[in-house]
Amino acid sequence: MTRGAPVTEKRHPYLWGDPGQALDDEAVAGLRALLAEQFPGADLRDNPLPDWRQAALPAPRLPVPTALQPLVHDDAATRLLHAAGRSTTDLLALRAGRIVAPDLVATPGTDAEVAAVLDWCADSGAACIPFGGGTSVVGGVNPSAGERPVVTLQLRRLGRVLEVDTVSRAAHVQAGATGPWLEDQLRDTGLTLRFYPQSFEFSTLGGWIATRAGGHYATRLTHIDDIVECVTAITPTGTWTSARVPASGAGPSPDRLLLGSEGTLGVITEAWMRVRPRPRWKLSCAVSFGSFADGAEAVRALGQSGLEPSNCRLLDPAEAALTHTSSDGGAVLIVGFESAHHPVDAPMDLALEAVRDHGGEPGAVSGRGDAPDRGRDVEGAQPSPVDSWRSAFLQAPYLRDVFVAIGVLSETFETAVTWDRFPEFHAAVSESARHAIAEACGAPPNGHGSPVLGCRFTHVYPDGPAPYYTVLAPARRGGEVEQWDEIKEAVSETVHAAGGTITHHHAVGRDHRPWYDRQRPDPFADALRAAKRAVDPQGLLNPGVLIDP
Amino acid sequence: MTRGAPVTEKRHPYLWGDPGQALDDEAVAGLRALLAEQFPGADLRDNPLPDWRQAALPAPRLPVPTALQPLVHDDAATRLLHAAGRSTTDLLALRAGRIVAPDLVATPGTDAEVAAVLDWCADSGAACIPFGGGTSVVGGVNPSAGERPVVTLQLRRLGRVLEVDTVSRAAHVQAGATGPWLEDQLRDTGLTLRFYPQSFEFSTLGGWIATRAGGHYATRLTHIDDIVECVTAITPTGTWTSARVPASGAGPSPDRLLLGSEGTLGVITEAWMRVRPRPRWKLSCAVSFGSFADGAEAVRALGQSGLEPSNCRLLDPAEAALTHTSSDGGAVLIVGFESAHHPVDAPMDLALEAVRDHGGEPGAVSGRGDAPDRGRDVEGAQPSPVDSWRSAFLQAPYLRDVFVAIGVLSETFETAVTWDRFPEFHAAVSESARHAIAEACGAPPNGHGSPVLGCRFTHVYPDGPAPYYTVLAPARRGGEVEQWDEIKEAVSETVHAAGGTITHHHAVGRDHRPWYDRQRPDPFADALRAAKRAVDPQGLLNPGVLIDP
Repeated sequence: MTRGAPVTEKRHPYLWGDPGQALDDEAVAGLRALLAEQFPGADLRDNPLPDWRQAALPAPRLPVPTALQPLVHDDAATRLLHAAGRSTTDLLALRAGRIVAPDLVATPGTDAEVAAVLDWCADSGAACIPFGGGTSVVGGVNPSAGERPVVTLQLRRLGRVLEVDTVSRAAHVQAGATGPWLEDQLRDTGLTLRFYPQSFEFSTLGGWIATRAGGHYATRLTHIDDIVECVTAITPTGTWTSARVPASGAGPSPDRLLLGSEGTLGVITEAWMRVRPRPRWKLSCAVSFGSFADGAEAVRALGQSGLEPSNCRLLDPAEAALTHTSSDGGAVLIVGFESAHHPVDAPMDLALEAVRDHGGEPGAVSGRGDAPDRGRDVEGAQPSPVDSWRSAFLQAPYLRDVFVAIGVLSETFETAVTWDRFPEFHAAVSESARHAIAEACGAPPNGHGSPVLGCRFTHVYPDGPAPYYTVLAPARRGGEVEQWDEIKEAVSETVHAAGGTITHHHAVGRDHRPWYDRQRPDPFADALRAAKRAVDPQGLLNPGVLIDP
Repeated sequence: MTRGAPVTEKRHPYLWGDPGQALDDEAVAGLRALLAEQFPGADLRDNPLPDWRQAALPAPRLPVPTALQPLVHDDAATRLLHAAGRSTTDLLALRAGRIVAPDLVATPGTDAEVAAVLDWCADSGAACIPFGGGTSVVGGVNPSAGERPVVTLQLRRLGRVLEVDTVSRAAHVQAGATGPWLEDQLRDTGLTLRFYPQSFEFSTLGGWIATRAGGHYATRLTHIDDIVECVTAITPTGTWTSARVPASGAGPSPDRLLLGSEGTLGVITEAWMRVRPRPRWKLSCAVSFGSFADGAEAVRALGQSGLEPSNCRLLDPAEAALTHTSSDGGAVLIVGFESAHHPVDAPMDLALEAVRDHGGEPGAVSGRGDAPDRGRDVEGAQPSPVDSWRSAFLQAPYLRDVFVAIGVLSETFETAVTWDRFPEFHAAVSESARHAIAEACGAPPNGHGSPVLGCRFTHVYPDGPAPYYTVLAPARRGGEVEQWDEIKEAVSETVHAAGGTITHHHAVGRDHRPWYDRQRPDPFADALRAAKRAVDPQGLLNPGVLIDP
């Protein structure tokens, strides 16, 4: 058994990621001052970070076959790093010592070793949790407490780009590749996946496929689904490899059954992915609106125009202020176009014309192009609203570590809903969230010093937006997990009742099960349950997620 | 029991469609002369069309419950109209009297009646074949001979547009709506589905969804899959209705399991579909290439440009000549753009620049726009190559009735393959087809008087084209079905071995089963079989298609 360094040694078991990238003391002090202003009278003292070395983990409950010992880890750091995903609830529970770690962590380096780990779990009666970056915010990788031993199957050793087909623009990639690693390996080819979820630093291709993650593009290629060419998964009963073709009409798509299967049908080990050249032309613009509702109408027009901007993110006033994109009390739309093939001035001009027709006031267009006359980069030394938004987006998970530490509840929920329902939906969800936050955290539902509830559109379809809500509220110390659970339950009920999906791109995991179970058609649930039994007859794979036996 | 007029009274049981739209005597004589030139010495005399009233159909083998009698038809015309799809093999077999008709045809008018028909089939041990337009070319609706009675469930009475949401641009449509009927009902809203398979006149929304049909757009929204918002199907164990949301990441998509299910999991009864305004700006252009290979390289560049033309159909020299698009011996690309929102001159100019870089010679740009200066309609009184191609496309099924009548084997097969494999793939498939035609039909494999083998790209993806092959050869009278079966088997083997999908948009049915069974991953087949057992435990639905119990 491998007793050496933990397999994701850069990460702290109780924090988002690499402590070396965390906010420094000065930044934390600044943030605390800002929050003190937002939440006057709130207790913002540090919750000290417990020493993970003090965590008492029970001894692993299953022996490891000799042949697998080199792949299996039982050290506390590795087990703790695989004890939970990275929702606020996960981080709070870890700090509170409410930890259910896997008995063991296996790190196979080949498909045959993945199959061997599954065989071992089958022989031992263990559950097996496939694990990529562990960045789930829905309880997608958390072991369940109980009699059954748990082996977490960590895929990061399967992280190589195996082949790049520059003619068809496709890359054969192992599922354990993280965002940066995948892009590093593609760099010499001039091609890129351009898939940037907020978890990009740690999350993996296999995790993106298993959870139908949402990426870079706000329209058109929104989910990973749209850039998958074919997938291989190892199931307990055999290998599932779909045909590598650009499209097919031969029966229901095998890939679409793996997409969103969240580790319950098989361990995704590799995929052919559609890649593209890096964009040569890029333009962005921040457009101001008097209100979120005005902005939403403009986004509807843009989403139905066929222009398909690469970026189309509408921030309500609270989100705009939170991300330093704007502080004038209005809504802001970040709209962008990019292309590796041609200048994008023409579609940008059409898009700005469309949003102006709906009361939008575009700022300067920034960007770059190959030819000097193409780029309309009019930025000065000050960061543009577009830059501010992007840097806030990427830094958010590290910021959240600070919120968790100083007793501020910071979490998000996201959905998608058709345009006809959106105004009532948004009103109902906002009301429900404000009310639940006040109930749970004791803050007044409105006015200065009230909790922050922000909304942005992360992705936009012709028939509706994908709204993403951010909550920021001073927690009552000691019961933070229960407080968030109450809020989450209230808003999930409203999201479901008002016609939204329980998740647009965060997946179902264990946390969304009650609403997912009501959202999905019953005969489909029967079909999925039967499909799982067929490929995983012992129910080894990620029990509790998506479906029960 | 309804003993009145057959339910699709305009169609002839042994022909493609409406005899009133068939070619007139003069056109048939012209076609015969052309074919005599193409196939010197071939026997092109008329096979007389048998009188369907002479067909001896066995008596129905199951009684009809009183409550269902108003919905059930036992007249010969109706049973014959539901005895087969519309492949060349189907039409030849019908003319030859090789007929397996359903025992009865049910025409439910509500979801409850659909469920009642399924219950009746379950109680009677009958198979149930969901039937939309009956235009399958892969044996998708043909009853199997055997002990088991067969009820065909004809959906044309469920053909209404129930609701149009003009805000979200979506329409709630019953599955039995044919193309023209659906568009007629949408017309007043200014919205359209813009989904035009070659079978548009008769095929239905439910059939399109069940078979993952291919439509209007050559790129981007190629399959019906891409414009489905949610689906309702009646299964033997309950109703399957997915949530109406613009997108979701909640588990594997329930819709994607119905898409391509070919009537084996449930009877699709309605769907919310994404609709759009009619285009105001349209431009088309025919681009000439010295060779098909040159054209393919240009199409690859265009398919990877991100311009996403609405039309991008490359015809090889044989297809160009067949459809009167060009007769100069070169290949022709029909490229088009359309928009309801903005002029499309800019993308057309970029597309023509891209194809010129690959040796293409664009002809005049034709089209129309709202403003006189937008449309660049430079056509004279002569039909343009674009018009010729479009009219040939729509007329093709009626032409085929003539081919069948005069002893010319006329059939197609289609696939999709990645660009890196395409050149070798195309060479292998062409060689295999020519050889098999020569073997089966006795014609010389090359030279004047040889069979016609044409290829066009119907749809184009960044990672590969969807090639569509047309065969035209003088049959040896009397064994036409066996001749085509031999050709089909040879080319299917090659398509599969050379890395193509066994179907891009014609579906699997009974005819593609041997290759589909090899193409799909084994664990997926197990999962699909189990899913079917869960929702259709008695295996009522379309036995023989896609999967065996």
